[in-house]
Amino acid sequence: MSVSSPESSACVPIELGERSYEIRIGPGLLDLASTWQGLPRAATALIVTNDRVGPLYLERLRTQLQPHFGRIDAVVLPDGEQHKSASSLDAVIDHLLASASDRKTVLFALGGGVIGDLAGFAAAIYMRGVPFVQVPTTLLAQVDSSVGGKTAINHPRGKNMVGAFYQPIRVVADLDTLDTLPPRELSAGLAEIIKYGPIADAAFLDWIEHNLDALLDRDKATLAYAVKRSCEIKAWVVGQDERESGLRAILNFGHTFGHAIETGLGYGAWLHGEAVGCGMVLASELSARLGLMPASFVDRMQRLIERARLPVLAPALGLDRYLELMQVDKKNEDGEIRFVVIEGLGKAVMRTASKTLIAETLAAHLDPSPMAVQQTDH
Amino acid sequence: MSVSSPESSACVPIELGERSYEIRIGPGLLDLASTWQGLPRAATALIVTNDRVGPLYLERLRTQLQPHFGRIDAVVLPDGEQHKSASSLDAVIDHLLASASDRKTVLFALGGGVIGDLAGFAAAIYMRGVPFVQVPTTLLAQVDSSVGGKTAINHPRGKNMVGAFYQPIRVVADLDTLDTLPPRELSAGLAEIIKYGPIADAAFLDWIEHNLDALLDRDKATLAYAVKRSCEIKAWVVGQDERESGLRAILNFGHTFGHAIETGLGYGAWLHGEAVGCGMVLASELSARLGLMPASFVDRMQRLIERARLPVLAPALGLDRYLELMQVDKKNEDGEIRFVVIEGLGKAVMRTASKTLIAETLAAHLDPSPMAVQQTDH
Repeated sequence: MSVSSPESSACVPIELGERSYEIRIGPGLLDLASTWQGLPRAATALIVTNDRVGPLYLERLRTQLQPHFGRIDAVVLPDGEQHKSASSLDAVIDHLLASASDRKTVLFALGGGVIGDLAGFAAAIYMRGVPFVQVPTTLLAQVDSSVGGKTAINHPRGKNMVGAFYQPIRVVADLDTLDTLPPRELSAGLAEIIKYGPIADAAFLDWIEHNLDALLDRDKATLAYAVKRSCEIKAWVVGQDERESGLRAILNFGHTFGHAIETGLGYGAWLHGEAVGCGMVLASELSARLGLMPASFVDRMQRLIERARLPVLAPALGLDRYLELMQVDKKNEDGEIRFVVIEGLGKAVMRTASKTLIAETLAAHLDPSPMAVQQTDH
Repeated sequence: MSVSSPESSACVPIELGERSYEIRIGPGLLDLASTWQGLPRAATALIVTNDRVGPLYLERLRTQLQPHFGRIDAVVLPDGEQHKSASSLDAVIDHLLASASDRKTVLFALGGGVIGDLAGFAAAIYMRGVPFVQVPTTLLAQVDSSVGGKTAINHPRGKNMVGAFYQPIRVVADLDTLDTLPPRELSAGLAEIIKYGPIADAAFLDWIEHNLDALLDRDKATLAYAVKRSCEIKAWVVGQDERESGLRAILNFGHTFGHAIETGLGYGAWLHGEAVGCGMVLASELSARLGLMPASFVDRMQRLIERARLPVLAPALGLDRYLELMQVDKKNEDGEIRFVVIEGLGKAVMRTASKTLIAETLAAHLDPSPMAVQQTDH
């Protein structure tokens, strides 16, 4: 199969009534004057970024925004999930107030998911809401944070515990920013792209299998289609369930096992996308053991995830620890652990599973290495 | 004119699509089982109140909620505007997390505007939004905070600088809770009720004039109609402008002068409603001086506001200080001070005014007492 779209640029309209916006996808968008036209005019703008992305792109973004705003400030936070915190949020709010930013001020989030979630939440609550533009610079943020309007900060007691549903007015996914992405983070982004195949679009799964090498080579046209199709599928799911009451849960395919692995190893040992990659292997195995999919589907998913340079063996945390970690998942009801499983290619459903079935599922993909828990270099 | 409605209970439906809710108004609602039926079921509920209102009503509310929730906690904050702060918000969020409250937890705000704004904001951001019930116990909160979905906390740099638009799922305005309200706070609430006449409903202004004594006597049927009609008018205005871009500004009649007085005297010297009462006299005077209303309208407003036991003379802050204070109003554009003025009974418009005109307006209602600035006992 050839690449479905030879275009290296794309635009995904997100239809949400008066909160509708566009996701612009393509190489070179950051330095293109037209990318920044049509935004609301304001006296001030604030760019929120981190100390890894800022040195690469902050001044280039500032140059492009110069004609549109009287004053453009920046808040540069330290890089890392631990800075998605109340104190970082305070720093952004304090800066807005100190610079006398009014209700028309436009916030720009330049960075990955941490910056997007944090700056988006600041935009949601400053003066009860100011306009907000996402400029995601990781593959994960481009496919995952661009759609859905989830913003949040972490709390010492839990991730994403304080936040808001708040939509950006535009998303600019410049594919050139992926050139500087470390290989592990590219693979982590691919995990979320792979996810959209089995849960919603069998043809997209075929397409990913045929184009994975080009994605790993960061070919722009191939990336453009992968980001576009992922955003379209997510928009379709979220459009039917904006506030996360039902269908939207299928976006968590691979995440129940994945979150357990992330927490069990300690945050930072595996990237979120790596844990989701391994979690999808386990969730596929569970789908097969529930009789919903043939064993060949598990092999297919495992092969693809491995080719994407993602881990496919579950760390040996012990069954009880896995059960304990999955017990606290937000999707659970009445104390039963609920999983997103595949019921025919392109269709996901929620199912509970017995302790025995979970044990068998884990055993089928367990890392035999006694050092698995410590292993972070894969 | 007789009281338009002999009923002591009323219900105002607020139509906002899937965010629609009801305002229930009447005496004895707190202790009525039916008041609390039909709320979403949840394992936990949290009542946020203060140390003045809590001792009066907390246990009565808890008793009524007992059948509907497995666990009912309470956070009792110190009374006062200075506690509408980030640290009070943190206390509420920390309590929710410590008690493992999930996304179905229902928050109850039992108190005046400070409690409603703070608890509403906590509900808006905890896990990206949990259901929230307003139980306003001041006349001001019953007519003002019940409609509009504004929630916020203060920041050291300004009032209501951080917040969200977030709708309650129900408002319960128990008129019996007004029996314990200090007389000054009753009058402060009347200021906001009076406001709805000149800006939107000439007949309601007539009604208030004929029923002011009954309102001051806290007659339940009269209060019920005043609260109901105020909520209806506010709902009509807000319904046309939920995010505060245009028409909604007319709700600020009397507030431009009022905020200047509040800030100029130092917060807490005059109650917000007292400053708005005096501000309405000044805004009426300005309406007359702009040629929009006859001088008799100014006399009429001044008489009514005085009868409501609200101040009608502007404290002698000095013209320059007034101008400076009004310069920072959020309604201003391009450095010109904008006022809500009356253009025919029941119709408000926005107008700018020259420095000379503002000076003449203030001079016409200036408190001659040199002690005016210090005077708080009126």
